[in-house]
Amino acid sequence: MTTTIDLNADMGESFGAWSIGDGVDVDIMPLISSANIAAGFHAGDPTIMQDTLRLASRYGVGIGVHPGFGDLVGFGRRAIAAPADELVNDAIYQLGALRELAHLEGLSMHHFKLHGALFMHAAKDADFAQRLCAALAKVAPELPIYCLAGSALDKAAETLGLPTVHEFYADRDYNDEGSIVFVRKVQRLDPQQVAEKVLRACQQGTVESVNGKSVAVSFQSVCIHSDTPGALALVKAVRHALDNAGIKVAAP
Amino acid sequence: MTTTIDLNADMGESFGAWSIGDGVDVDIMPLISSANIAAGFHAGDPTIMQDTLRLASRYGVGIGVHPGFGDLVGFGRRAIAAPADELVNDAIYQLGALRELAHLEGLSMHHFKLHGALFMHAAKDADFAQRLCAALAKVAPELPIYCLAGSALDKAAETLGLPTVHEFYADRDYNDEGSIVFVRKVQRLDPQQVAEKVLRACQQGTVESVNGKSVAVSFQSVCIHSDTPGALALVKAVRHALDNAGIKVAAP
Amino acid sequence: MTTTIDLNADMGESFGAWSIGDGVDVDIMPLISSANIAAGFHAGDPTIMQDTLRLASRYGVGIGVHPGFGDLVGFGRRAIAAPADELVNDAIYQLGALRELAHLEGLSMHHFKLHGALFMHAAKDADFAQRLCAALAKVAPELPIYCLAGSALDKAAETLGLPTVHEFYADRDYNDEGSIVFVRKVQRLDPQQVAEKVLRACQQGTVESVNGKSVAVSFQSVCIHSDTPGALALVKAVRHALDNAGIKVAAP
Amino acid sequence: MTTTIDLNADMGESFGAWSIGDGVDVDIMPLISSANIAAGFHAGDPTIMQDTLRLASRYGVGIGVHPGFGDLVGFGRRAIAAPADELVNDAIYQLGALRELAHLEGLSMHHFKLHGALFMHAAKDADFAQRLCAALAKVAPELPIYCLAGSALDKAAETLGLPTVHEFYADRDYNDEGSIVFVRKVQRLDPQQVAEKVLRACQQGTVESVNGKSVAVSFQSVCIHSDTPGALALVKAVRHALDNAGIKVAAP
Repeated sequence: MTTTIDLNADMGESFGAWSIGDGVDVDIMPLISSANIAAGFHAGDPTIMQDTLRLASRYGVGIGVHPGFGDLVGFGRRAIAAPADELVNDAIYQLGALRELAHLEGLSMHHFKLHGALFMHAAKDADFAQRLCAALAKVAPELPIYCLAGSALDKAAETLGLPTVHEFYADRDYNDEGSIVFVRKVQRLDPQQVAEKVLRACQQGTVESVNGKSVAVSFQSVCIHSDTPGALALVKAVRHALDNAGIKVAAP
Repeated sequence: MTTTIDLNADMGESFGAWSIGDGVDVDIMPLISSANIAAGFHAGDPTIMQDTLRLASRYGVGIGVHPGFGDLVGFGRRAIAAPADELVNDAIYQLGALRELAHLEGLSMHHFKLHGALFMHAAKDADFAQRLCAALAKVAPELPIYCLAGSALDKAAETLGLPTVHEFYADRDYNDEGSIVFVRKVQRLDPQQVAEKVLRACQQGTVESVNGKSVAVSFQSVCIHSDTPGALALVKAVRHALDNAGIKVAAP
Repeated sequence: MTTTIDLNADMGESFGAWSIGDGVDVDIMPLISSANIAAGFHAGDPTIMQDTLRLASRYGVGIGVHPGFGDLVGFGRRAIAAPADELVNDAIYQLGALRELAHLEGLSMHHFKLHGALFMHAAKDADFAQRLCAALAKVAPELPIYCLAGSALDKAAETLGLPTVHEFYADRDYNDEGSIVFVRKVQRLDPQQVAEKVLRACQQGTVESVNGKSVAVSFQSVCIHSDTPGALALVKAVRHALDNAGIKVAAP
Repeated sequence: MTTTIDLNADMGESFGAWSIGDGVDVDIMPLISSANIAAGFHAGDPTIMQDTLRLASRYGVGIGVHPGFGDLVGFGRRAIAAPADELVNDAIYQLGALRELAHLEGLSMHHFKLHGALFMHAAKDADFAQRLCAALAKVAPELPIYCLAGSALDKAAETLGLPTVHEFYADRDYNDEGSIVFVRKVQRLDPQQVAEKVLRACQQGTVESVNGKSVAVSFQSVCIHSDTPGALALVKAVRHALDNAGIKVAAP
């Protein structure tokens, strides 16, 4: 039975004058333990990155870089058919950019998590996953890679001995195989139901699939996507349920 | 009398499928001792940055980051009226991006030099220069800042005790005060004349101004802009003249 | 005494997944008579442009193109020091892009209004204003140019016989000369006060300056910036006041 | 037997300070009859578009818009997994932008041809091809669509009664079915061989496949990609061969 769990969310997904979703970084940050911070390719700009780093630091939240495709207009949700090595370089570029801005604030990096379509690409494409992990093994061997258990990225990280953190996706449906059911647009969810789903996953290690089956899940972090409609209410409900159940929320 | 001098040029100024100037990084790199590498804002992309880092490494050339305005279409030659703090964050972002890609190659950074209109802005705007130096003092206090002697950036660096390298601009005209005569478009220059100008500057510490006066100049590095028409021929002539005169070309 | 007035606002200032301000295009559009639609340089993308055109069409609102600097991260509020001819080409490019998308919807263009820092640049720089008007005289001589009375753009348009629409800026302060007091960040304003200010301007042709003087103003359109905090409430209050006073809101 | 043929090439593929390939627009333009002009998404910017339009006009070359994916760093060669309607809007946006700049020069549009990965996407994806043609039927029903005979785009155009121009790709290999053999990077070709290949195709209506078979080809335009290495020499040789054979080069 889990007594401590990590709670992660994407942060810093504004760009220039624009904010996204409920625009509630300041409200969500105090409730989570790990933040995946956009680094300028699909969202975020240097000044927003700085603001987000400071906000994470204020609440002792673990700082993760959240590299995405270079697809601003599509928010990194559109796959770009690029050579694997170019995508690796893009990810390392983003890691370095955020790490330097963290350095400027006297902060250290905590983890690495890909965004959107690049996250999905690394989950499926073994070649890209291996090349990415080979690069990370050189520049950030100590940073845990947040990923889906059993994905191509998970396997590549394991092969190279890189630390991983497996995630449970609070705002996504699972199929009978324990995989996520992909949807283009996530609907508004009931916070109470999401909280109960997370609690069951933490306490019993299972999730109810879309077909009503009980499926085993193993994870060290609960992810709530901050661009899911009503994300703040979901995070609040989940955090409240975890607190009430005596499960401590802390970064791994 | 100078027995050793640094020779620096901008490198990695391609972008995606495009190259610039004579496209002669591979020819210029063996002749110089310090490379200012574009970092994705006005030129360069992560893969070109990697290629350029590897090329610099092959010839033992000092690796400098060359941050510019976020102005791809204008090649960083157009000033953007942005708040100083945003420009500082942009520069630190670019520094980190290149540093991480260098890290991936097992390479260390050697220096910091601003590009184009951002270089000119820092030379004149004391507030920006001071904020930039305050940030560099935190993240890269050991990296020499390439700049014009007596400029706002030079003074700000000196105040904070940051190392500087003063430059002599081989392909620019000087006025009677020892300042550079700004031109929008540099004309094709005679390589032999440029080589003689550099030699005189190195050996006698003077340059002939546009009015024919002999003006004192003090510097530790000779800069040749790689987008000056015929840049390769200029670098070749300068390097040849320095070699012949027994002046060693080496990074500071 | 005015019996009909135009009410214009910037529309379509989202980008990709991001929306701006109160994100209330759907609420503001029914209340105004002219929409200035961003065209992809400082905000807007082709699909948002299409959505905004359809929304404008639904309420019979006049369609204007709203060209800005190519400054996405700065929302077109940062001046870029570019040659006048390049800026003219940029503006014509944006005009054509929106006009074609309007064409696709079977809609015609109604007016031309510059955005942000480019609006200010054209108000002051006679050379740019003249070159822009010379281009507009060729491609869109029938489109009224929304501008500040007496500005460089206004004069250039007049010289070439191009139609203009002078604006009254409901959410900006005026000085004793009848010019706008520029501020970097507009504060939240009291809707009732703004409505009264507009009503007085329409009925008496005057505005109270920041020094308390009554200053004459002449205009055919009232502008409310949709990124002013609380813009929707301002537009509602102004529209309500105009309706109550029997002043018809209609495009010129 | 063909007595007149169109010769088309991509033009205006520079961006800002960068040029591409041999950078030989000024040399190629006098030799061709139709130019596919980049419109700012994968290459080109408003000022380069203007320069290219003027160059085309000087030699009486037909002006085509050449829309691509919004992929500057990848030169539009990388497919982006975007919804069909968004891609249609992107293409119409680019068409309008070029058309307005042509309008400014007093020029009319001659044709429509997609670029790179977007060209390939429209050749295969019937849904996108149909939506694109439906939009073109509204805004540019008179513009011939340059495409591969039998492709999805060709069929969609035919269904809607839109004019097409079928192309013969001088610098690509053909398989036994008369389709193009896709390669990521085209090698330098022998100009004389390419010229003979074009001449045979024009005179006999056949091409030799990669397996040595004679395959029938039907086309109204010969395309030479201006980013193929040595493109200028290819165009010169082809033009010379056509002139010598008494085949007139003219836009359809």
